[in-house]
Amino acid sequence: MKKFVYLFGNGKAEGKGSMKDLLGGKGAGLAEMTRIGIPVPPGFTISTEACTEFYEHKRRIPEYILEEINLNLSKLEKLIGKKLGDPGNPLLVSVRSGAKFSMPGMMDTILNLGLNDRIAERLSSMTDNPKFVWDAYRRLIEMFSDVVFGIDKEEFEHMFTDIKKKEGIKSDAQLTPEILKQVINKSKQLVRKKVKAEFPQNPLDQLHMAIRAVFLSWNNERAIFYRKQYGIADDLGTAANVQAMVFGNMSDDSGTGVGFTRDPASGEKHLYAECLMNAQGEDLVAGIRTPKHIEELARELPPVYKQLAKIANTLEKHFKDMQDFEFTIERGKLYFLQTRNGKRTGIAALKIAYDMVREKLITREEAISRIEPEHLEQFLFPIFNPDEKQKHKVIATGLAASPGAVSGAVALDADTAVRFSGEGKSTILVRKETSADDIKGMAASKGVLTARGGRTSHAAVVGRQMGKVCIVGAEDINIDEKNRRFITGGVTVKEGDFISLDGFEGKVYSGHVPVIPSDIIQVVEETIRPEESENYKIFTSILKWTDEIRTIGVRTNADTPEDARIAYKFGAEGIGLCRTEHMFFAKDRIPIMQDMILSQTREERAKYLSKLLPMQRNDFKELFRNMKGHPVTIRLIDPPLHEFLPKLEELMLEIKEHELKKESSRGLDRKRMLLERVQELHEFNPMLGLRGCRLGILIPEITRMQVTAIMEAACEVAGEGVKAVPEIMVPLVAMVTEMKAQKEVIQQVADEVLGKSKKKIKYKIGTMIEVPRAAVTADQIATEAEFFSFGTNDLTQMMFGLSRDDSGKIIKTYMNEKVTLNGKTLSILEKDPFLTLDLGVVELMKLAIEKGRGVRPDLKVGICGEHGGDPQSIVLSSAIGVDYVSCSPYRVPIARLAAAKGALNAK
Amino acid sequence: MKKFVYLFGNGKAEGKGSMKDLLGGKGAGLAEMTRIGIPVPPGFTISTEACTEFYEHKRRIPEYILEEINLNLSKLEKLIGKKLGDPGNPLLVSVRSGAKFSMPGMMDTILNLGLNDRIAERLSSMTDNPKFVWDAYRRLIEMFSDVVFGIDKEEFEHMFTDIKKKEGIKSDAQLTPEILKQVINKSKQLVRKKVKAEFPQNPLDQLHMAIRAVFLSWNNERAIFYRKQYGIADDLGTAANVQAMVFGNMSDDSGTGVGFTRDPASGEKHLYAECLMNAQGEDLVAGIRTPKHIEELARELPPVYKQLAKIANTLEKHFKDMQDFEFTIERGKLYFLQTRNGKRTGIAALKIAYDMVREKLITREEAISRIEPEHLEQFLFPIFNPDEKQKHKVIATGLAASPGAVSGAVALDADTAVRFSGEGKSTILVRKETSADDIKGMAASKGVLTARGGRTSHAAVVGRQMGKVCIVGAEDINIDEKNRRFITGGVTVKEGDFISLDGFEGKVYSGHVPVIPSDIIQVVEETIRPEESENYKIFTSILKWTDEIRTIGVRTNADTPEDARIAYKFGAEGIGLCRTEHMFFAKDRIPIMQDMILSQTREERAKYLSKLLPMQRNDFKELFRNMKGHPVTIRLIDPPLHEFLPKLEELMLEIKEHELKKESSRGLDRKRMLLERVQELHEFNPMLGLRGCRLGILIPEITRMQVTAIMEAACEVAGEGVKAVPEIMVPLVAMVTEMKAQKEVIQQVADEVLGKSKKKIKYKIGTMIEVPRAAVTADQIATEAEFFSFGTNDLTQMMFGLSRDDSGKIIKTYMNEKVTLNGKTLSILEKDPFLTLDLGVVELMKLAIEKGRGVRPDLKVGICGEHGGDPQSIVLSSAIGVDYVSCSPYRVPIARLAAAKGALNAK
Repeated sequence: MKKFVYLFGNGKAEGKGSMKDLLGGKGAGLAEMTRIGIPVPPGFTISTEACTEFYEHKRRIPEYILEEINLNLSKLEKLIGKKLGDPGNPLLVSVRSGAKFSMPGMMDTILNLGLNDRIAERLSSMTDNPKFVWDAYRRLIEMFSDVVFGIDKEEFEHMFTDIKKKEGIKSDAQLTPEILKQVINKSKQLVRKKVKAEFPQNPLDQLHMAIRAVFLSWNNERAIFYRKQYGIADDLGTAANVQAMVFGNMSDDSGTGVGFTRDPASGEKHLYAECLMNAQGEDLVAGIRTPKHIEELARELPPVYKQLAKIANTLEKHFKDMQDFEFTIERGKLYFLQTRNGKRTGIAALKIAYDMVREKLITREEAISRIEPEHLEQFLFPIFNPDEKQKHKVIATGLAASPGAVSGAVALDADTAVRFSGEGKSTILVRKETSADDIKGMAASKGVLTARGGRTSHAAVVGRQMGKVCIVGAEDINIDEKNRRFITGGVTVKEGDFISLDGFEGKVYSGHVPVIPSDIIQVVEETIRPEESENYKIFTSILKWTDEIRTIGVRTNADTPEDARIAYKFGAEGIGLCRTEHMFFAKDRIPIMQDMILSQTREERAKYLSKLLPMQRNDFKELFRNMKGHPVTIRLIDPPLHEFLPKLEELMLEIKEHELKKESSRGLDRKRMLLERVQELHEFNPMLGLRGCRLGILIPEITRMQVTAIMEAACEVAGEGVKAVPEIMVPLVAMVTEMKAQKEVIQQVADEVLGKSKKKIKYKIGTMIEVPRAAVTADQIATEAEFFSFGTNDLTQMMFGLSRDDSGKIIKTYMNEKVTLNGKTLSILEKDPFLTLDLGVVELMKLAIEKGRGVRPDLKVGICGEHGGDPQSIVLSSAIGVDYVSCSPYRVPIARLAAAKGALNAK
Repeated sequence: MKKFVYLFGNGKAEGKGSMKDLLGGKGAGLAEMTRIGIPVPPGFTISTEACTEFYEHKRRIPEYILEEINLNLSKLEKLIGKKLGDPGNPLLVSVRSGAKFSMPGMMDTILNLGLNDRIAERLSSMTDNPKFVWDAYRRLIEMFSDVVFGIDKEEFEHMFTDIKKKEGIKSDAQLTPEILKQVINKSKQLVRKKVKAEFPQNPLDQLHMAIRAVFLSWNNERAIFYRKQYGIADDLGTAANVQAMVFGNMSDDSGTGVGFTRDPASGEKHLYAECLMNAQGEDLVAGIRTPKHIEELARELPPVYKQLAKIANTLEKHFKDMQDFEFTIERGKLYFLQTRNGKRTGIAALKIAYDMVREKLITREEAISRIEPEHLEQFLFPIFNPDEKQKHKVIATGLAASPGAVSGAVALDADTAVRFSGEGKSTILVRKETSADDIKGMAASKGVLTARGGRTSHAAVVGRQMGKVCIVGAEDINIDEKNRRFITGGVTVKEGDFISLDGFEGKVYSGHVPVIPSDIIQVVEETIRPEESENYKIFTSILKWTDEIRTIGVRTNADTPEDARIAYKFGAEGIGLCRTEHMFFAKDRIPIMQDMILSQTREERAKYLSKLLPMQRNDFKELFRNMKGHPVTIRLIDPPLHEFLPKLEELMLEIKEHELKKESSRGLDRKRMLLERVQELHEFNPMLGLRGCRLGILIPEITRMQVTAIMEAACEVAGEGVKAVPEIMVPLVAMVTEMKAQKEVIQQVADEVLGKSKKKIKYKIGTMIEVPRAAVTADQIATEAEFFSFGTNDLTQMMFGLSRDDSGKIIKTYMNEKVTLNGKTLSILEKDPFLTLDLGVVELMKLAIEKGRGVRPDLKVGICGEHGGDPQSIVLSSAIGVDYVSCSPYRVPIARLAAAKGALNAK
């Protein structure tokens, strides 16, 4: 029979660390810690498969699983020597969820389970700390009611506050067992009123109800939103952990804490932990009290501190990654309640990976597999301009929980943050502390600032994970929700006012502080020297490792010499796409272009084009120089001609205005001429009109001019000793005949130029694959094209029959609307296909590559759409045999990483 | 060794009738006629393979072929008992081209080859008719110089005319040998002057040069144009036929003629031949003299006439098709020079096929294989309104060579006809006679009228083949080219004036005579009874035969009850596409539609839609009734919403005008509101925007209203005893999730309506496949769609990335521009992909069908784009497993035929 429950305790465990699918992260961690001799309170884990069974049995725990739970409960009772529900010697347990992927704050926890009226009474009479017992019972009722009955915690808190006020209680220390009993009675009344039921007095009922609540919480709204946000499958399910309670709030030599084996913000190698003495775990994570730095523990309980540090070290060595752990000290005895790979900022991720490789803890491959593209991005985010910072007042200081520099309008709650962000405002969410309810607001904000909580509080952990700039525990801040403002050090900041967060230093500035590029960017842009940046060293070292691993090339989409220069510094191995239209659109060139379009004869047209020739030749020379012998793929003119002319409606209105005012002028005549041509060139669907190679075929003079400029440029730089490797790319080919028609012109012109210059330049002629027909007939097209480059933007548009420019509302609706397919609930669109390659598009690309290589086995294949810079798309491309991706200069490092990760995945 | 030359004569032949590929039509016909005992002058055919060798040897006839020719010449000389170049007993031959496909007037002919100065002198001295000898020599020089040296015939004619004028000759009968010798001398001078060479005196040289000229003429401009026009491959090559001369101009009991075994215009079963006594073949075909009806021969040479009639009968029985033959009578002895399947009008084609099946000469399958879609079309062309004809003057009468009724502007030469037609004018080419030079002009015209020539003249033959209305031999017409006019019976018609041709009766009317539908259409439209039309009987009989043969269904694209009714009469087996947008666009509905679009709330929107509901329900009821139990495929709303609103520029201009005039009104306010909404809905590429199922998903109220209307209509007609078979089609699906989202709405609404009405209606839900992504992921989509219908218009647009509306100039250029691919010269586009399915599109469709049937083996697949009515596309569709095509009502008969032909091809 299938096993659903896994026991752990006393150095033995039925589960282990690798069983995350089955036991969830928490359960697997508890089992593994138990196995390697770390002090863990015993307990058992109910597997994710049990959760699946639960949903398959109409949200009931099947009898055979209940029996297995009860059996393991008995074993646990034996291990501990206590019994659930035994008034004389009661076992108290916690019940926690734990899915495969950690979802902070998403799932609910119940502590102190096993208490009831009778047991509380008996315990309080047995202990020297009755207040502790009654408080534990109070907490149980509150948590249980929240989680199981869905009664808002706030209601309990309000009632508690009212009683404290009535009794004149100012600090929790003043509470007495009697007052707490009064609170408990009121709590039970509240339950009765709200759910027409009694708070369950049978501890076994409590346990079963709690486990059921854990399973149900897998599908609560916040959990679904979170999974969607992070692309976690909906059908994984969660495990439930039942574990003997240990109490951090039992005495002054008790306490609770959380920690990281290294600094999760900077990556520095030192123990990074916080604790609260005489407190329960939830007090800490919720950020209600700001915890103490771990050094205090070292002073107060040196042996415990030493043990903690040693275990932290053991954990890191064992799991070979930076660990995020939770511990409790019960009367001077240390317990570990959880360990998992710690979330970290991008900067920390690189630093830790880099250091661990140097410490020989992990391999380079392992290092790369742990670094995500978003981590690299953080190195490229701007920082505040130091000069400008001085002009702004520091209005608060907190803990630098997640780095970065950002300015935005203050929003005092999640809904407002979502609204501000929807209005296009840069937003900063400012809260006393955050909880799971704030997730949407955090996602919508650029930065998060809290008044309470430590570096391991909810805001800090989630903020880091989301890559938001985050400052926590800025205690000076007093939030005045009623008046929609906060006050800090005498300064009043109203909701909507701008503040700036420096997540590197933990400083909050008033107003909008201008930013400058990050130090990596400054090195690339040559405003500082590489040696001046430690980050640059780490960044480039890691990117070099990616180059050893990845199997596909990374080029750049660069239209200007400056783009090319920067991309080269970022490691681009050539230009995958140089869009030449910018060479026509420049201010000094567009009037020539307009004259060319207005030309009546071939000769006139050629005359204007010949004016553009030397300009474009110079552009190409610069590109070749900056690419230092790497290939430069140049796309011939692509956009519709009318893009070079004024807009139809504007011209019509201008002319109408002139006419109605009965004005007449030569300007009006030219406007009328322009209008005539604009009307002539007007297209219902410009995307599907006269563009791409169609232009080159209808007006071969343009192709001739461009190829002349390219080949002359190549010859001229060859004269300077620079190797030029031009790859001439014909856009929007649908048929091999189009390709051939342009190829004939290109070869003829190239032969002429090379013949004249007597230089030998190797050049290639290839095509964009951006029209579905080209992909379907790739076997024909490859007979004439020496390379393919997928123009995935247009290919996606044509495949879907959906214009990117017109798709906003549609895609938004599609991502929200749900359908049920094969029993699964899906969005109509799970991802925006213009950001991440759609699988239907990939299918066609695969077909095209197979067909193309069928006739030309050495066919070079690249991707040059926006997708070339999207990590997931890069992995997909790599899997179907693409040779290289090409992306914007600043995406080159990300593409190198993604390509390496793709190669690791494929192993 | 390969054989290149095939001898025939004296009842024996090396070739035979089935060897058209090798011997060309003419050569194969001569061989076959010889074999079956028909009197044919002996000769030999040089094969098309020799032509290919010729081009492969840089336009030289290789030595081994020359040797084979000379060998066969000797055999021919033995058969005849005469010798080429023997002054005492000279063999004279004709050299003619003959390709696989007959191309009238395209290839050149040389007669009387073998004559030179010396032989002519000797022959003239031996004969009692020296004038005949010198005239034959004169003709040889003229034809040879034209064909071999490229000297314009006109130059010889001018010179000849000058001499006749000088000598006072008014009729050819007055010519003397001396005058003819003078002409010959002048001709030789002309040759010397033009090509710096002598007319060759060696008959063997003449022969070799003539054969070479035949091969070269394969690639003259006219031949290339013709092949392009009719889709004949450029690499077939032509054969050359060398045949002993017989002379129709030797005496008064000599003559030449051409004929058809049945009437090629009407299809009536009687000998349809013409002859010219004492004339050579070219005189007849060129239409220079109008020939006599064959009845005259019956009077003048009764035994010859009898023999001719008997042979004609033999030929038709042997070849099992109507034959087009040429004959010559030399001194009372009959020779057949050619036979081939005769070109015919559409009406004749059906009549002949129908009759031959009844005569048991051919099977129904053979009959169908000989009928082309264009033939059927002729039955549907309009005819002149008899009442209107009476109001117009008959200005000339000629021979009804090709039927139809057409009005157009008179063009007196081919260039003018091309120009008129380019200006969009309906054009009628009026010529004394036509020659190969007029082909382009004929192609550009709607009708052709000649003053000379018989029913077998160039104009008649080519006009019939092109399906032009054609009247020939309207002898009253005098063309005055200088003054760009013609005069007939006192009436002057200027170039550009309108005339009307009645090709059924051979009458020419002045002005523009209005037309009415053909009798077939009148039957279908129920303005006459079926019994009143003999044509209708033939037409429907043949269509019934197609139904026995074809393997795919034919449905119709019908949006209105009237369309549905007509299509049903034409044999449609259901509606393949009902576009419901017309149900929104109607005059009384569009304001409601606009109000719906301007609505601010769901409720308001639903209110306006509920006004449309009863209207659409009635539309559907009518469709169901007219389809009498056949399936009705209804596409849900498809076009972008903004199509229901006024145009952006118009609104802007109107508002600007109001503003500048400082007017203000409530109308202006509504205009501003409309403008706002139009701007909101404005799309850069409406084709790729908010349309199709995207509309239905964003505004499900529309889908709900439509499905309610469909299902309520089905229930109501079911109450009348009419079976309704609705197939609800979701347009523009790219993803299975879109399909599912709409399917959920459709099923819900349908269940509601059916539940309420308690009727059982079987309905299907399927999708258009018109977006490439849908085709690529057809395996997913077929899990939810019960049928596919290819929207080949949009599919072609998306596959090419080319908007049909914006493609005019591009496609035109593409069809003209040539590229060389694998050594072949091709147009960039050989065919307009919006008319005939492109092979790349077909490839994708094939993939989609395979994928779709992979998951749903009984998936019904149709085609409902314009291509559904294109014969070639129907054949392609049938080959990839499409179940039915759907086309406009008037294309249904053509689709039935094409489907049957496709099935025959596949056998």
